[in-house]
Amino acid sequence: MALTVDLNCDMGESFGAYTMGNDEAILQTISSANIACGFHAGDPTTMRKTVRMALEKNVGIGVHPGLQDLSGFGRREMAISAMEAFDLVVYQIGALSAFVQAEGGRLQHVKPHGALYNMAAKDARLAEAIAEAVYKVNPELILFGLAGSELVKAGERIGLKTASEVFSDRTYQPDGMLTSRREPNALITDHELAIRQIVKMVKEGKVTATDGTDVSIKADTICIHGDGKTALEFARRIPSALQQEGIEIKKIASFL
Amino acid sequence: MALTVDLNCDMGESFGAYTMGNDEAILQTISSANIACGFHAGDPTTMRKTVRMALEKNVGIGVHPGLQDLSGFGRREMAISAMEAFDLVVYQIGALSAFVQAEGGRLQHVKPHGALYNMAAKDARLAEAIAEAVYKVNPELILFGLAGSELVKAGERIGLKTASEVFSDRTYQPDGMLTSRREPNALITDHELAIRQIVKMVKEGKVTATDGTDVSIKADTICIHGDGKTALEFARRIPSALQQEGIEIKKIASFL
Amino acid sequence: MALTVDLNCDMGESFGAYTMGNDEAILQTISSANIACGFHAGDPTTMRKTVRMALEKNVGIGVHPGLQDLSGFGRREMAISAMEAFDLVVYQIGALSAFVQAEGGRLQHVKPHGALYNMAAKDARLAEAIAEAVYKVNPELILFGLAGSELVKAGERIGLKTASEVFSDRTYQPDGMLTSRREPNALITDHELAIRQIVKMVKEGKVTATDGTDVSIKADTICIHGDGKTALEFARRIPSALQQEGIEIKKIASFL
Amino acid sequence: MALTVDLNCDMGESFGAYTMGNDEAILQTISSANIACGFHAGDPTTMRKTVRMALEKNVGIGVHPGLQDLSGFGRREMAISAMEAFDLVVYQIGALSAFVQAEGGRLQHVKPHGALYNMAAKDARLAEAIAEAVYKVNPELILFGLAGSELVKAGERIGLKTASEVFSDRTYQPDGMLTSRREPNALITDHELAIRQIVKMVKEGKVTATDGTDVSIKADTICIHGDGKTALEFARRIPSALQQEGIEIKKIASFL
Repeated sequence: MALTVDLNCDMGESFGAYTMGNDEAILQTISSANIACGFHAGDPTTMRKTVRMALEKNVGIGVHPGLQDLSGFGRREMAISAMEAFDLVVYQIGALSAFVQAEGGRLQHVKPHGALYNMAAKDARLAEAIAEAVYKVNPELILFGLAGSELVKAGERIGLKTASEVFSDRTYQPDGMLTSRREPNALITDHELAIRQIVKMVKEGKVTATDGTDVSIKADTICIHGDGKTALEFARRIPSALQQEGIEIKKIASFL
Repeated sequence: MALTVDLNCDMGESFGAYTMGNDEAILQTISSANIACGFHAGDPTTMRKTVRMALEKNVGIGVHPGLQDLSGFGRREMAISAMEAFDLVVYQIGALSAFVQAEGGRLQHVKPHGALYNMAAKDARLAEAIAEAVYKVNPELILFGLAGSELVKAGERIGLKTASEVFSDRTYQPDGMLTSRREPNALITDHELAIRQIVKMVKEGKVTATDGTDVSIKADTICIHGDGKTALEFARRIPSALQQEGIEIKKIASFL
Repeated sequence: MALTVDLNCDMGESFGAYTMGNDEAILQTISSANIACGFHAGDPTTMRKTVRMALEKNVGIGVHPGLQDLSGFGRREMAISAMEAFDLVVYQIGALSAFVQAEGGRLQHVKPHGALYNMAAKDARLAEAIAEAVYKVNPELILFGLAGSELVKAGERIGLKTASEVFSDRTYQPDGMLTSRREPNALITDHELAIRQIVKMVKEGKVTATDGTDVSIKADTICIHGDGKTALEFARRIPSALQQEGIEIKKIASFL
Repeated sequence: MALTVDLNCDMGESFGAYTMGNDEAILQTISSANIACGFHAGDPTTMRKTVRMALEKNVGIGVHPGLQDLSGFGRREMAISAMEAFDLVVYQIGALSAFVQAEGGRLQHVKPHGALYNMAAKDARLAEAIAEAVYKVNPELILFGLAGSELVKAGERIGLKTASEVFSDRTYQPDGMLTSRREPNALITDHELAIRQIVKMVKEGKVTATDGTDVSIKADTICIHGDGKTALEFARRIPSALQQEGIEIKKIASFL
């Protein structure tokens, strides 16, 4: 039986006169797109264009809500309340939904961005507020969260379908969590190693932690990056590398 | 047969720590609320609270999209393109829709705010872009525009239900347009006169222009204001004043 | 010999169409004004008007730099880097300086706002970055910080004059720090108690902590609030209450 | 005697995670830099870095104030009042001044950006407000404006030194004004023609208009662009091309 995994990437992060990423090229390789909604990146015109491109490529469309911190690209943690998290997620889901509606498409998932994603991985109350926001706007949406995180747990508790996300370019700790970016060994820059890590995650449900031990991990969707020198080159290698291992890339809604 | 008219007011214009308007009190008198969406005023938390209050009072809920000019409260005309107008209207309809959805309600209408409303009254291309944005997101929504404006015409051409809006506190020109605020006689500050003007509009379909002549005008919905010294006092007088003339106030969706 | 203390209040926090505070009335009682610079509150027009009013009342003018979080009023902690803190303080000092220059005045001090103030009280690296920003733009400026805080220490290390700030409406812990607002006994709402606390701070250099013990505290400037129901009433009582105790209110630059 | 001209370029237009332009390379060829101040582009960190780079290259530093329209890059005309123009120019001069002060440099000039520049070329009241803002903050600053514009006239009336700016890549009308970008012949894309135009402007004080006639024009400073495919390549050719014609490039403050 064929193994299946989803491949997702953040996009629609251009803003006004500023261009970011290689959306058109990346859309050729991924199965799900997380589209920025104007809080940490993106703007209405970019959202419309990105939604249209994703529909043309038959890529699953996701809301990528972030903190209202354009100058920090949503990467700086902010002490927002659970209520504020709820409200900004509802707002951003709605904004993107309207473009999907106007373009005749259908929304697939929600994946929080940057600091909001990281805070929701650890903070149960924030995670619950986000899960509730998704559920109340559209209980059919799939919630993406870090594998093993509070966000995935909160999504399951409330009755959402969830997708456990793994990273090809990050190392893992013995407890199954990501190594902090502050650590020297946080990143995997060798493309071979990166591909071997995700193949193992998908096939065996395991990842080799930094101490050499194998840890269980659920890999429904793999996060790749569209920006940076070798991002596109790496992204293009993944589909065939996975195929050689008998792993098919499909959008999450089709197999979850 | 009883005459019917809708009474609308802008609301949800508070922002973060800043409070504006008397939303709770005004909601007692009006039949339709135009809720700001975070571009010219409002924020996600204010949107949720205002939607909830409007639903409790059984007031029709409208999207009130504005220009992205928070420091100018959306009142300064900006040279945006038709495409930009389309995109910012789609975005803002979506954002408010999600709160209405989360609260278990239903959206009734769209009324552009401030400079966007004024530009769309005169500029046919902008008006068309806005009407198309509404139509593509939800063709059931009613489009509010200045009576006789390009926006109402564009809405009708595309197949939307439209509501022609009149003002109680503004004088009219012989061509049926509003007297510019730069003119000394633009405003009607006498509450008796203001009420007499709207009664005549609703009953006879006419308004007495500044030159004394009677001009035809369509009055589906009357705009009142919630901010300012005597706004609330005036707002509270309208329902009984209209009732005495045999005019009922009902939300637009119920009789259009 | 007469005792002297400075009385400061945040102002210029209006934004666009939004009004906040009672600046004109509060300026009658205080000796130093902390003027918002457009990041957490305020805008260019409000800055000009507030600077002009402060000059007319001969009140010392201070920069009140905040986090770039208008929707959160600068009250939500954000994980900014020391470099970002340096840059946003330089920027905001400059912006206000230009209005002071245009109005023919002179800048007196810098007091960080809200979450930036709180973070700089505890985080030595952030405190140093802020102190360095002030020093590099204008080493004559006086740096306001919570009495006993890292910010005051950093200011002294770099060679700035500093003003230790105390609060009339907050209780203190045995270690001289403020009781967290999350604690039930954090606030002093009784105006008599509040005045007794500041008289003791100024006259004896001591404050009675929540456990009943007396703690040493340096009180160069007292923070009062301009917003809220009884804020103005309380503000108006302070000058005469202090005078009765032989304490004169003067702007900090005149006696530090 | 050697002819002299200033060569200026907009820079510091990156924002947060977004990069724009080729500042470091362009700084090698120009004599004056117009640095964005966070309203239409730029942010505090970018401002500091750009000021530092400009000082290292001994390039004249200018404030580049724009409309508060980050998503439109300050290119969309907005109906701001003269007072608002005054305030936003004061604010932005101050913000950049502080970075120049912190880096031990000195401000040279002010050049409004985009829509603000264009509006100030035609609208005398706006032009006066901008000139007054510059004068009140620092009467030593040189005001850059389109040659023959209301902005240059307003600067002269108030007593500022002004620099008349010309464009290498734009055609001119018989009245000495720029051909509107809406016209097909607005742009000069041929680098040879562009260089011939500026040589003629500097040497003869004339430009050949689109109807073939020669028009008088004052050319104190030439505007070049740093973004776009061939911008950098063209920028690099200018210095030697002008030198061959006996024209020296120097920062404006050194010869005006």
